[in-house]
Amino acid sequence: MKPIMSKSDAAAHVDSARIRQGRTWAELADHLGTPLVWTTAALLGQHPMSAEQARSVCELLGLGEDVSEGLTMQPSRGTSAEEMADPTIYRFTEALAVYGPALKALIHDEFGDGIMSAINFQVDFQRREDPDGDRVVITLDGKFLDYQW
Amino acid sequence: MKPIMSKSDAAAHVDSARIRQGRTWAELADHLGTPLVWTTAALLGQHPMSAEQARSVCELLGLGEDVSEGLTMQPSRGTSAEEMADPTIYRFTEALAVYGPALKALIHDEFGDGIMSAINFQVDFQRREDPDGDRVVITLDGKFLDYQW
Amino acid sequence: MKPIMSKSDAAAHVDSARIRQGRTWAELADHLGTPLVWTTAALLGQHPMSAEQARSVCELLGLGEDVSEGLTMQPSRGTSAEEMADPTIYRFTEALAVYGPALKALIHDEFGDGIMSAINFQVDFQRREDPDGDRVVITLDGKFLDYQW
Amino acid sequence: MKPIMSKSDAAAHVDSARIRQGRTWAELADHLGTPLVWTTAALLGQHPMSAEQARSVCELLGLGEDVSEGLTMQPSRGTSAEEMADPTIYRFTEALAVYGPALKALIHDEFGDGIMSAINFQVDFQRREDPDGDRVVITLDGKFLDYQW
Amino acid sequence: MKPIMSKSDAAAHVDSARIRQGRTWAELADHLGTPLVWTTAALLGQHPMSAEQARSVCELLGLGEDVSEGLTMQPSRGTSAEEMADPTIYRFTEALAVYGPALKALIHDEFGDGIMSAINFQVDFQRREDPDGDRVVITLDGKFLDYQW
Amino acid sequence: MKPIMSKSDAAAHVDSARIRQGRTWAELADHLGTPLVWTTAALLGQHPMSAEQARSVCELLGLGEDVSEGLTMQPSRGTSAEEMADPTIYRFTEALAVYGPALKALIHDEFGDGIMSAINFQVDFQRREDPDGDRVVITLDGKFLDYQW
Amino acid sequence: MKPIMSKSDAAAHVDSARIRQGRTWAELADHLGTPLVWTTAALLGQHPMSAEQARSVCELLGLGEDVSEGLTMQPSRGTSAEEMADPTIYRFTEALAVYGPALKALIHDEFGDGIMSAINFQVDFQRREDPDGDRVVITLDGKFLDYQW
Amino acid sequence: MKPIMSKSDAAAHVDSARIRQGRTWAELADHLGTPLVWTTAALLGQHPMSAEQARSVCELLGLGEDVSEGLTMQPSRGTSAEEMADPTIYRFTEALAVYGPALKALIHDEFGDGIMSAINFQVDFQRREDPDGDRVVITLDGKFLDYQW
Amino acid sequence: MKPIMSKSDAAAHVDSARIRQGRTWAELADHLGTPLVWTTAALLGQHPMSAEQARSVCELLGLGEDVSEGLTMQPSRGTSAEEMADPTIYRFTEALAVYGPALKALIHDEFGDGIMSAINFQVDFQRREDPDGDRVVITLDGKFLDYQW
Amino acid sequence: MKPIMSKSDAAAHVDSARIRQGRTWAELADHLGTPLVWTTAALLGQHPMSAEQARSVCELLGLGEDVSEGLTMQPSRGTSAEEMADPTIYRFTEALAVYGPALKALIHDEFGDGIMSAINFQVDFQRREDPDGDRVVITLDGKFLDYQW
Repeated sequence: MKPIMSKSDAAAHVDSARIRQGRTWAELADHLGTPLVWTTAALLGQHPMSAEQARSVCELLGLGEDVSEGLTMQPSRGTSAEEMADPTIYRFTEALAVYGPALKALIHDEFGDGIMSAINFQVDFQRREDPDGDRVVITLDGKFLDYQW
Repeated sequence: MKPIMSKSDAAAHVDSARIRQGRTWAELADHLGTPLVWTTAALLGQHPMSAEQARSVCELLGLGEDVSEGLTMQPSRGTSAEEMADPTIYRFTEALAVYGPALKALIHDEFGDGIMSAINFQVDFQRREDPDGDRVVITLDGKFLDYQW
Repeated sequence: MKPIMSKSDAAAHVDSARIRQGRTWAELADHLGTPLVWTTAALLGQHPMSAEQARSVCELLGLGEDVSEGLTMQPSRGTSAEEMADPTIYRFTEALAVYGPALKALIHDEFGDGIMSAINFQVDFQRREDPDGDRVVITLDGKFLDYQW
Repeated sequence: MKPIMSKSDAAAHVDSARIRQGRTWAELADHLGTPLVWTTAALLGQHPMSAEQARSVCELLGLGEDVSEGLTMQPSRGTSAEEMADPTIYRFTEALAVYGPALKALIHDEFGDGIMSAINFQVDFQRREDPDGDRVVITLDGKFLDYQW
Repeated sequence: MKPIMSKSDAAAHVDSARIRQGRTWAELADHLGTPLVWTTAALLGQHPMSAEQARSVCELLGLGEDVSEGLTMQPSRGTSAEEMADPTIYRFTEALAVYGPALKALIHDEFGDGIMSAINFQVDFQRREDPDGDRVVITLDGKFLDYQW
Repeated sequence: MKPIMSKSDAAAHVDSARIRQGRTWAELADHLGTPLVWTTAALLGQHPMSAEQARSVCELLGLGEDVSEGLTMQPSRGTSAEEMADPTIYRFTEALAVYGPALKALIHDEFGDGIMSAINFQVDFQRREDPDGDRVVITLDGKFLDYQW
Repeated sequence: MKPIMSKSDAAAHVDSARIRQGRTWAELADHLGTPLVWTTAALLGQHPMSAEQARSVCELLGLGEDVSEGLTMQPSRGTSAEEMADPTIYRFTEALAVYGPALKALIHDEFGDGIMSAINFQVDFQRREDPDGDRVVITLDGKFLDYQW
Repeated sequence: MKPIMSKSDAAAHVDSARIRQGRTWAELADHLGTPLVWTTAALLGQHPMSAEQARSVCELLGLGEDVSEGLTMQPSRGTSAEEMADPTIYRFTEALAVYGPALKALIHDEFGDGIMSAINFQVDFQRREDPDGDRVVITLDGKFLDYQW
Repeated sequence: MKPIMSKSDAAAHVDSARIRQGRTWAELADHLGTPLVWTTAALLGQHPMSAEQARSVCELLGLGEDVSEGLTMQPSRGTSAEEMADPTIYRFTEALAVYGPALKALIHDEFGDGIMSAINFQVDFQRREDPDGDRVVITLDGKFLDYQW
Repeated sequence: MKPIMSKSDAAAHVDSARIRQGRTWAELADHLGTPLVWTTAALLGQHPMSAEQARSVCELLGLGEDVSEGLTMQPSRGTSAEEMADPTIYRFTEALAVYGPALKALIHDEFGDGIMSAINFQVDFQRREDPDGDRVVITLDGKFLDYQW
């Protein structure tokens, strides 16, 4: 009996099938009725899917039970340093290096001593048209948690 | 003749005076008429200020010419690994490790091969009231740049 | 003759079979009559099991002699940096970065110069119900060892 | 005007005065009426104190306003890699490397996909007498937070 | 169904076929009608090719559909630290360590606060004959982007 | 007798005086009659200057013998990792991660096995006007050195 | 023709056979008539064995010529950082971090400027009975080498 | 009131006075009646001394109360990576990289699953005369601790 | 069609065949008529060989076209950190850490500002008999290159 | 009483005085009658000098007792990673990365299993005239040490 397929192998199968069928991530999210960024992250291996969600997306993409089983697994979340250095991802890291201390200062000023949760947290992704060049607009929305004893 | 005060020393003076006078970062931004996150980042040493802005904020805070001169300098931008490990800042890093590859995938799906600029870029910080606990809402808004030859 | 199965391969087989049979780690610990955290850690490859324990759990899960043999091996203990960065594990690392020096200071104040053993050591895991949200309660219980010549 | 004293300088003054007066951390916690581990961590620079708490402890220890002011500041939390390698602290890191994946697995089994908060979190430190050698007993008690969108 | 071939496997096939047929990178660029450095980088896996470009170069080199499909994929851009230490590549890193701060200073002097884009960016490679030994001449040409809010 | 002023202290004095007098790096290069990028790098501490050059620039900027002496010293060349992470410098690092292997391949194709010297090497910096936004144009020009025994 | 088996593969075969036959490392050392620590290290891949030694131990353990050939190879000595973090090995690293500078000081005091050779060097391993718990006694015995020109 | 002198400053004073008086570490150990390696390590900052020991050694060396106070402090134990790379210390690290896995295997063979304590642990340093060159003989003697729940 | 064999696989085949035939590196260098260190480095994958050289050595060792093809490839030069930590190689690294700054100082004193080329560079390896123990004598011979604009 | 001057401060004084007096390292070596590379390394802080040597060189350079005392101290040998990245030093590191495994192979072929000592070791530095450009010739001469038990 083979062990359950790894999240990264399942993700490679999903992405390959998606590309060969010419589907966008948004179409997969619509099919599942789940938020766009959550769906993309989950199919790339960063969230477990319910058995029903996994089966639904695998049927759509013509993938087997082994992939579907992998998609339901609890992941070890994170991204390798190599992938984080890709220019499209790195710009977020750089912005955080420039604005991170300012965001910390503003959280403390406005809410007191605590953090913005990365767990009770959602991310929205939008395109905004602009005559000087369209813009990527990403909204991070997380619950404030204060240090409590 | 002493060299110009470093950005980090200037920031320490600004922050100390701000705290002793009981002023928020938002009050400093209002005084200058500049965006909240930009102002906080600039006063913490991540952006050069114009001579007029620097003088205005130093007068408000009762700081001298040496601090004002430091605030106008071109910075070497970035944040040390130690500061990035502070829990309030780390949550952003963690969110990026979970959602970074998904955001990259969505940028490519929606815009094609390219990046979200971290230079032609602005950050907004808001508090949103919520009966289950108020939320931090941060909006990243950057111009899409496609790989061009 | 094939070398003995590695601890990580044995763990992958155990976890896959456990999930497919819908069993919790607590059920495996009950079956073996061993402490919950010890059992989970051992089956994930961090402790050697006795031959009897290994055979018992493999029979329950329908796994072969090769897996059972792997479970009895002496491990090289530890966890990769990638796995340690998973958010669920990282919170412990962060708590240690915040409270580690305080715990050191309190050990020295109460016991003198020495350490809390990580070998003569046990870990308990509990859920505590709380109207504001249930809580994870983890107890670390280790023998004090003083620096002795 | 001098910038506000850094958290680490304030901590050095507190610890030196405490030692010269022969006081334990527990006495300082009793004086303030605050939890033992929290108090120790705060005085070592990992939590901001209220102005009243800071003044109270500085009066007890015969320290000035400059130290008191430093104790109220918002810290950049964390501990250097050098200090984390001290044997008394390292044992906790090692225990986490051995039991971290097991604790993650048990959190997911018992609570579902989520984390134990390190913010809504408290730590208790006890000595337990034992004929085979007294034991350090540390309890970590944090709210479960599930991944929510 | 096999996942799509990775960029690095596709690059290994392209380079092997190129060498066995005795073709230079310049011949491949001429065949495609695309710039020399772009073409080389793309075939080594750093840029996606159009389906037409990928098919054209694979026909020339006698490679199959699987390689061609891999060449059209969006890459995770970057180079491993090991490859960056190769002497021929390292000289560029060293030059950057010597001249990087000077180039930053000159960009700020001439253009103001901003960067030279690495996205709206092109690289030219030339050989210049010289009686004291021919020279490699590389031109980096990128759009200036100023920090804008 | 005080040791000779370090290159970085000398650079801080030069840059502070330059800014207070409102002079560009280009004006200093013109004054010395030396190439622009070389002059900037040398004054930032990456090249030794002749005694005559050092004295000339210090007279222009009103700096003393101690600074002048420091400028003539042989440097230990290089830039710290923190400074290399500044966005304006990082773009060059990123471009090298994307195009480095391609440049290596082209050097081998065109010249054979060897490197582009970073010692017999010069860098030119230009602004090129462009209706879509002015461009930074940097030319690296180094002698090819082949592996010779 | 297959390349010679790697040292680590040969070690895995030796250790697996040893465990399945229930033999201790001491029995293998007795069989070969070689020192205990040397023998264990050699069979784990840190020293080359003579052809006769390799054949002798492989016959005893029922292993083939391919393993025997691997055991005679010259190793690249060392241990990965992951294995060094195993608690049983880590304690030696920790002891070295605590006592290393003292041992250096004592070598200089007693012998002058030089080192204890790690090449002309032997290690002895003993168990010493002790009513408070048996002890591991390890003796490092190396030739003093003085800095000589 | 000045904070208590750091362990490293106290060690620098002790070592300087020791050298200027031409005393060996062995003479200091004899004076205190404490073991040689322990004494050297303690005076270099790796162990706290009793107030009596600290005063006694400071009187011998003509050092003040401030040094004596520093010697009694609880240290943060460890040695920087730079110091560990000194050749005299590095040879121990290298020996551990070669023999560490063998020592682990022998501890498990002889004692079962556990470690050699680095806390209930002592180190002896001897010179052994040898016609082929005198030898450094270091004995590590630590209590075996088995993994116990 | 399989990609060309990697340099490291080709090296493993060469070394295995060399050992099985009992040939020294010097014999291979003699067979090819090429310098000893160059030949060894090239066959271990650090230099490309000409097709004629590769074929000649493969015929001698009874290796196929696939190995020969691999030997002619342009390498990515360098050695992994693990291999560099082998004691026989590490001694060179250590010597460089001790004498590197002195060699730099002497190059500047004797030649001016510049480097010793590592490209126009050769290495000689000799054994010198010595009654106190034979010696390894390695000569590094590289062209001086001065910083030139 | 001030602690003894550090090796690096002593080296800075020596180098500053040497430059101001226009003396080469060779002149200092001649004055002392000691080998050139040894003398330079010792004066840069990598070897202890005898009291007589230290006094002699300090008299020549007009330096005080405090510098002389520092020169006699036992150093912690090594060079920081920043200094090792200087191009003039880095070329040696690179050569070692290219030729290190070959030198190891040749030592084993010629001498058997062992190392070239870096302690019983000397370095010679020469300039060799060459019509194609003068050359740096460095000879490393170290005793072979075989692995001995």
